[in-house]
Amino acid sequence: MSKYWNKLINDIEPYVAGEQPKPGQKVIKLNTNENPYAPSPKVKEALADFDLSTLRLYPDTNSTDVIRAAAKFDGVGEENIFCGNGSDEVLAICFQTFFEKKALTGLPVLMPEFSYSFYPVFSEFYDIRRKAIPLKEDFRLDPDDYIGVPNCGIVFANPNAPTTRAIAVADCARIAAANPDSVVIVDEAYVAFEEKYETAVSLIKEYKNVCVVRTLSKAFSLAGIRLGYAVADAELIEGLKRARDSFNSYPVDRLAQKVAEAALLDVDYYEETRKKIIGTRGRVEAELKKLGFTMPPSSSNFLFAKPPMDCGTLYQNLRSKGILVRYFNKPVLCDYLRITIGTDEEMDELLDAIRQEVQNAENS
Amino acid sequence: MSKYWNKLINDIEPYVAGEQPKPGQKVIKLNTNENPYAPSPKVKEALADFDLSTLRLYPDTNSTDVIRAAAKFDGVGEENIFCGNGSDEVLAICFQTFFEKKALTGLPVLMPEFSYSFYPVFSEFYDIRRKAIPLKEDFRLDPDDYIGVPNCGIVFANPNAPTTRAIAVADCARIAAANPDSVVIVDEAYVAFEEKYETAVSLIKEYKNVCVVRTLSKAFSLAGIRLGYAVADAELIEGLKRARDSFNSYPVDRLAQKVAEAALLDVDYYEETRKKIIGTRGRVEAELKKLGFTMPPSSSNFLFAKPPMDCGTLYQNLRSKGILVRYFNKPVLCDYLRITIGTDEEMDELLDAIRQEVQNAENS
Repeated sequence: MSKYWNKLINDIEPYVAGEQPKPGQKVIKLNTNENPYAPSPKVKEALADFDLSTLRLYPDTNSTDVIRAAAKFDGVGEENIFCGNGSDEVLAICFQTFFEKKALTGLPVLMPEFSYSFYPVFSEFYDIRRKAIPLKEDFRLDPDDYIGVPNCGIVFANPNAPTTRAIAVADCARIAAANPDSVVIVDEAYVAFEEKYETAVSLIKEYKNVCVVRTLSKAFSLAGIRLGYAVADAELIEGLKRARDSFNSYPVDRLAQKVAEAALLDVDYYEETRKKIIGTRGRVEAELKKLGFTMPPSSSNFLFAKPPMDCGTLYQNLRSKGILVRYFNKPVLCDYLRITIGTDEEMDELLDAIRQEVQNAENS
Repeated sequence: MSKYWNKLINDIEPYVAGEQPKPGQKVIKLNTNENPYAPSPKVKEALADFDLSTLRLYPDTNSTDVIRAAAKFDGVGEENIFCGNGSDEVLAICFQTFFEKKALTGLPVLMPEFSYSFYPVFSEFYDIRRKAIPLKEDFRLDPDDYIGVPNCGIVFANPNAPTTRAIAVADCARIAAANPDSVVIVDEAYVAFEEKYETAVSLIKEYKNVCVVRTLSKAFSLAGIRLGYAVADAELIEGLKRARDSFNSYPVDRLAQKVAEAALLDVDYYEETRKKIIGTRGRVEAELKKLGFTMPPSSSNFLFAKPPMDCGTLYQNLRSKGILVRYFNKPVLCDYLRITIGTDEEMDELLDAIRQEVQNAENS
C-alpha cells in the first residue's frame, strides 16, 4: 500500500511468474515451459552479420522483417501480422483493443476457469469485467459453453494451460461463428506441440473476429528475446497498432527482430525440436502413469499431472533435489504439478527422483 | 473505425513517431534525436561473450545486471531503479501506476502545453484527466505554474522537448515540495546534453515523490535496444513493478540487458560522445543565428529553431534533398523545426542546404 500508487495498483494482485534460479544455481528447470534445446543455429549466423553501430537508431516500428518471416511461416499476408514484446504484451494489447471497459458495457470477457493465469490479471488491470467458464470432466473445454453467453470478447489458450488439452480448430470456428460481434482470441503459445498441429490461423480469412496469438518463446526456443505476434484479419491488426502507438511505438528491439526473423525461417530446425519434445513427452507420460499419476492428454510441452501422493510435498521435495516444477497453490490446481518437458536426460533424472518420492510415500 | 475495436481505440489519436527512412534509402536523419555516434565498443565485447543457447530461457524479470550498472552510474541503490522496454514503456507504466483515473478523481495530471507529445496520448489511453500548463516567453517553464494547482500528478521533460530548455534541479525540488501528495515525473531523456549535467536523481532521497525517467536511447546511442529506467524512492519502484507484473513480467530481453549493462559501465565513452554533441550544437546554433534563425537556448541534442522563412517549405525542401528534420504541423510549433544534432559532417551538409534555401527565399 502506498499513497503514491493509484487505486488500481493498490488493489491489484499481479501475475506471479515461475521461479527463476539464481545465477550459477544448478537446477533442472521444468517450471516455466521453456524449450530445453538451444535456438536455431541460424540465430548465430544472423547475429554474426549484425552491424552494432545501427543500435544507435530506433528499430523498425512494425518489425517488418519479422512480419515477412512470420507471414511465410503461417501462410498469411503481411497485413495479417502484428509483432510485440513477447506474447504477454501482445495479449495485453489485445485486451486493451478488443474488449470493452466495465464502465461502458455490462458484458464480460469469457475465459476458461482454469487457463493462463495472466488473463484475469489483464482483465483487472484494464478494467474489463470477466466471466470464468468452468471446464468439463478431466479439464475438457466444451465449445458449447461459449455459445449463447453474452460477452464483449472471448479468450482461451489452445492447447490450454496449465491443463494441456486442445480443442479442434473446427470448435474454435464454432465459437467464432456463434459470436460474430466479439473478438475471439486463441492463444496458441503451445500449438507446435500438438502432434497433428492444427492451428486456428486457417480461420482468419473466413472469421474476421478470430485473433490468433503466437510466441517464439516455446517452439522456437526464444523465451529470452521476447517475441510474440498476433495473426488476424487486417482490421484487427490495425486496431492493435493503434493501441501500440498509444503506449510504445517501438516494442521490439533491433537484435530481437534479427534473431526472430532467423528462427522463423528455419522451419526444419523447428520441426526437429518440436518432434523431439513430443517424443519425450509420450515416454514421460507413460512412465508417470506407471507410477500412478493421472493426467489429461497433453498437446503441449508440459504435463499437468496428479501424483499418487501429496502434491505440495512432492513439489517441495523435488525442489530440494534441485528440480523445479510448477505448483499452483489454489483449489483444484493444487492437486497437480505442471511439468515442462525437458531433454531426455533431464526427464530421466526427474523420473528417478519421482520414483524415490513415490516409494518413500508408500513406505511411510 | 471498427466494430471490433473498443471505444477507446476508435476514439484515440495515437502518437506519431518521426519518419523512418526505407531500408537502403540514403538520408541524413536528424528527425528523431538519435545519437550520430555508434554505441560504446564495450557493447561488441559483451555480445561476443554472449551464450546464445541461453536465449531459450526467459530473461531476468528485473534486469538485475542493468540495475546494478545504472545504480552505479546514478549513484543510487539498486532498490531505486526500475527497468523497462524503452523510456516510453517506463513512462506509460508511470502513468498507470501514479496517476488516477478520471472516474475516480476530478484531478488532472499537469504537463507543459508543449512537451513530449506522448504525454497527452498516455493520458487519453489510460483515462486520466490532464491539464496543459502554458509555457512562458521563449518556451520557459515557470515552476510557479505548478504550485497551488490541484492535481493527481505532474510530468514534464527536463530538458523539455521539443523546446530544448531545462529548468534547474532546485526548481524541480520546489515543484516536488509544493505537491507532496503527487508523484512528479521528471523525464530526463536529454539531460546528458545539458552542459553542466544537473539531474533530479539527487532529489530522490529527500523527495519520496520524485520519479526520474532515463533512457539509453540518446546519450548511450542505444535507441535500437529499447532500454529506459526510472530512478525513485523504493516505494515508487515497488509500484512500478506491480504494474509491470500486471502486463508483461519480462519486458527487457536477454540481449538488450547485456548491451545496456555494457554501455552503462563505459562512462568514459558516454562523456566523450556527449561532449562532442554539445560542441557541435554550439557551432550549429551560432551558424543558424547568423542565417537569421531564432531559438531558445538548448540543453538537449537538438535545436528548436525558427527559420527566417516559411517553416513548412523549408522542411519539405530539406526533405527532398535527403535531409530529415522534424516538423510539427500544429499551432505555434509549426513555426519551428526540431533539428537533431548529428556529426559535424552531417551538420555541415545541413547548414549548406539551409544557406541555399534561405538565399532562395530571399531572392524570390
